[in-house]
Amino acid sequence: MTARPIRLCFFGDSFVAGVGDPAHRGWAGLLAEHARPVLGDIDFTVYNLGVRRDTTADVRARWSHEARRRFPDGCDNRLVFSFGVNDTTQQGDSTRVRPEDSVTNLTAILDDALACDWPVLVVGPPPVADEQQNARTRHLDDLFAGACAVRNVPYCSVIAHLDGDTAWIREAAAGDGAHPSVQGYRDLADVVLDAWITWIGSAAAVGGAR
Amino acid sequence: MTARPIRLCFFGDSFVAGVGDPAHRGWAGLLAEHARPVLGDIDFTVYNLGVRRDTTADVRARWSHEARRRFPDGCDNRLVFSFGVNDTTQQGDSTRVRPEDSVTNLTAILDDALACDWPVLVVGPPPVADEQQNARTRHLDDLFAGACAVRNVPYCSVIAHLDGDTAWIREAAAGDGAHPSVQGYRDLADVVLDAWITWIGSAAAVGGAR
Repeated sequence: MTARPIRLCFFGDSFVAGVGDPAHRGWAGLLAEHARPVLGDIDFTVYNLGVRRDTTADVRARWSHEARRRFPDGCDNRLVFSFGVNDTTQQGDSTRVRPEDSVTNLTAILDDALACDWPVLVVGPPPVADEQQNARTRHLDDLFAGACAVRNVPYCSVIAHLDGDTAWIREAAAGDGAHPSVQGYRDLADVVLDAWITWIGSAAAVGGAR
Repeated sequence: MTARPIRLCFFGDSFVAGVGDPAHRGWAGLLAEHARPVLGDIDFTVYNLGVRRDTTADVRARWSHEARRRFPDGCDNRLVFSFGVNDTTQQGDSTRVRPEDSVTNLTAILDDALACDWPVLVVGPPPVADEQQNARTRHLDDLFAGACAVRNVPYCSVIAHLDGDTAWIREAAAGDGAHPSVQGYRDLADVVLDAWITWIGSAAAVGGAR
């Protein structure tokens, strides 16, 4: 059985878009490059659909429309989602999106994607140079992990690996307070790499069957 | 006057998406990298919205919706379009899109973008490893140049620079017949570079005023 061509959309926020990376690739671009040795000759196309300032609500409102424009019939169409930091940003005396609404948004996305038979990988929100916000993001990270677990969707938490005395935080602090540069994105890609290779490799291993 | 942040969407086909480039950047990613020295400290975000198999009709149907999700108020929002090769692909005894319809699609896009006060740069369609199709693409390239000229939209024709005994054609022929690899995309970026720098530099030169 010949593996079907893969079409993969990364949806999320500015971290997905790679803001701060002078090469304009970010961790999604690095992971795409790492997939090639695993996939061999399989036709593989990646679309980066990260958008600055997007919350889970923003992605929920647009992802299906944008994915359908990029997913032909007969392809192994796949999705990666990564968001949450904009949800936990303080706005007035609340946050841009309340945690329970963030989870509702994620679960609505997952249920719609799985109903379409599109495999999903979720990557957790990274830290920023603001410890109070990181505490809120860690809580959301736990909720996201739980929502994915009950649906058997792979979830890759990254915040503990990138927080503290790390290149991610140093580069963010030296920049705009949120976005890293070259090394930070490399480190995030490294954290996700094993889960990514396992997930993308399942397409190659069984000739595109899921 | 401080220059406004720049948000820039590249719309088009698989060549815009960089299909065939192992680094998944393509010419759009290379141009984005080249813009940094010109723009200095100006906040600059690029979105690559190229989609495989998209014709001018496909881009016309989706570009405005996708751009609005990425263009905040108060930013210097800009657009690059590059398409046409899928239009000139043979389908039955015609092509996927007739030349007159391709031009209608381009002019509708330009008129809508200019009405929104979004500066536009158009990059012409490149050649493929099929000389009959290239003859049709050259004709379309001339029509596109004319449509842009009457609207004072900069148009950068590339087909003459990439056709013949070039890395673009050699890499395309060695691949799937259409998409180059590393050097081909570098060469396309080089062809467009002067027009790109002039166009993107106008944002920096006058503090974001247009």
